[in-house]
Amino acid sequence: MPEIRVDPVHRTRVIVSSARRSRSLALRARLPVPEAEPCPFCPGNESETPREVFALRPRGTHRDGPGWEIRVFPNKYPALLPGGHGREFEKREDHIYVSMDGVGGHEVIVETPKHDLHMADMEPERIAKVLQVYTERMVKLAENSRVRYVLVFRNYGFLAGATVEHPHSQVLALPFVPPSVERELEGARTYREEHGTCVFCDVLEKEIEDGRRIVFENDKFVGFAPFASRVPYELAIYPRRHVPRFENLSEGEFVPLAEALKDVLGRVRDVLDDPAFNSVIHTSPVSTGAESRFHWHIEILPRITNVAGFEWGSGMYINIVSPEDAARHLRTIR
Amino acid sequence: MPEIRVDPVHRTRVIVSSARRSRSLALRARLPVPEAEPCPFCPGNESETPREVFALRPRGTHRDGPGWEIRVFPNKYPALLPGGHGREFEKREDHIYVSMDGVGGHEVIVETPKHDLHMADMEPERIAKVLQVYTERMVKLAENSRVRYVLVFRNYGFLAGATVEHPHSQVLALPFVPPSVERELEGARTYREEHGTCVFCDVLEKEIEDGRRIVFENDKFVGFAPFASRVPYELAIYPRRHVPRFENLSEGEFVPLAEALKDVLGRVRDVLDDPAFNSVIHTSPVSTGAESRFHWHIEILPRITNVAGFEWGSGMYINIVSPEDAARHLRTIR
Repeated sequence: MPEIRVDPVHRTRVIVSSARRSRSLALRARLPVPEAEPCPFCPGNESETPREVFALRPRGTHRDGPGWEIRVFPNKYPALLPGGHGREFEKREDHIYVSMDGVGGHEVIVETPKHDLHMADMEPERIAKVLQVYTERMVKLAENSRVRYVLVFRNYGFLAGATVEHPHSQVLALPFVPPSVERELEGARTYREEHGTCVFCDVLEKEIEDGRRIVFENDKFVGFAPFASRVPYELAIYPRRHVPRFENLSEGEFVPLAEALKDVLGRVRDVLDDPAFNSVIHTSPVSTGAESRFHWHIEILPRITNVAGFEWGSGMYINIVSPEDAARHLRTIR
Repeated sequence: MPEIRVDPVHRTRVIVSSARRSRSLALRARLPVPEAEPCPFCPGNESETPREVFALRPRGTHRDGPGWEIRVFPNKYPALLPGGHGREFEKREDHIYVSMDGVGGHEVIVETPKHDLHMADMEPERIAKVLQVYTERMVKLAENSRVRYVLVFRNYGFLAGATVEHPHSQVLALPFVPPSVERELEGARTYREEHGTCVFCDVLEKEIEDGRRIVFENDKFVGFAPFASRVPYELAIYPRRHVPRFENLSEGEFVPLAEALKDVLGRVRDVLDDPAFNSVIHTSPVSTGAESRFHWHIEILPRITNVAGFEWGSGMYINIVSPEDAARHLRTIR
């Protein structure tokens, strides 16, 4: 019998229907990203990108030259532009239609000089440095007084929307809190009113106690397949410690989080034949006064099935692999 | 300058950023659907599907045999199962996790015996018959007292989630109103409170007056690129007449709607090199007493770009082709 599951945080429903499973895990094989020649993110091709705004590079190397370890620059095709720092930006109201300037920011973080390195093959120390650069750019972009939210995400593979193969993340600074985070904040607020506790902390406790959906654990982080997973093999990484902001990650947490990411991404790659995936960090909005109720986390979405008419038309998901099966499968290796 | 646009109905934001355009309309070329051999939807292979529940077929032909014009059967891999007709269905609450039986219904409507016929190449009379079958199945599935909503959608091409190439639609009967429709109902309610009119009617009036986003018009229907289009070349078809339910389409409206669909789908195919697309009908919920405020419509989503980490993480969309440019482009032919 298919099952309708309600997400404990944002309360949206998912249909888990493993009867559909046999028909279509057809997207596992990764389609190649149609690549630019030469790769604009490779060392030596720095002039192909906008000028760098930040880099980890040894002494003696030069801005926008090779030798860097991690390099950050504005997206060449930005979804939002920085604009000025004043609080106002232009808003147009034309009867029923409201629009405003797309002010914010959009940066690319190139994670390694190596063109073809899966995050699962990076040293934990390298991933830890990437995470640290995330926090620095998030803090920096939030300095613009118009910015209400900074979203860090990663597209890996063609079907996940990547347009460059070279390992990179993106940081988008938005002049509003995006709907997914709004819903999580609202869910956390309601839950706290009803139960007096953090819904994310309670989910974590429940998952550890139950165990069926756990994929990875260390001292500081837990990786698991969420109860109401939207797509097959969806994963979440939660910090055990209740911290609203990713940006407040402490010195001693970068490497353990890097180990969690390396482990779960490696399992996804090995079990599912190197699928495309998206990952995203959900942190607290820039300044709402509501910080204490949020609990930052990472969401990982392998893209082995296609979003179809039902999803577009309904705003919800049919998942053809139960999270219990997915977690069991991901645990089989190593 | 990129622009943030607010949808007038459900109030969600879209980022329209044509700076990004140059980089990726790479998905235009249609990837083939990995096909089953023989096609289970072709005449002569009726035994490959569950037994038909409805068909348009001439006298002298037999149930589950060839000769049909349009054929309907339960989905072999249903997302939801019919179950009994009682009002209760099993609900499980396990601390923070709520789940319930996936009760509803899931049918496939094979639209033609021809395996390889784009809807744009069907006769308007055939499309009109398909639309009439939609209404009949919607009414039929709504008879189950658990069903709160019936969603009709169509997946065309691999990247739109189709698993069979043969032209078909799907009907999913849900025990709740899906979030996308909830948001539209809520938006329409708020708008009516504020303005005293139907937001869909006002959008239509505004679009006709403005003209920049119009793609098709006849006596009864208007096809246009919505102001806050989520994906490049998104289209909507609205009836000029304020009718809450698609199921109440009158006899004289089937052919004009078929002409609208044939026209806009033909333009999408010809202008964008036969892309994958999804389409969906939004109609009023089965019985909420709120019928009068809704205004049924069809949404068409060409799938020429991939949903990426930003969309998954934020719950909103970056659209790299403005709806004005899209409509102008679609109007260039014929």
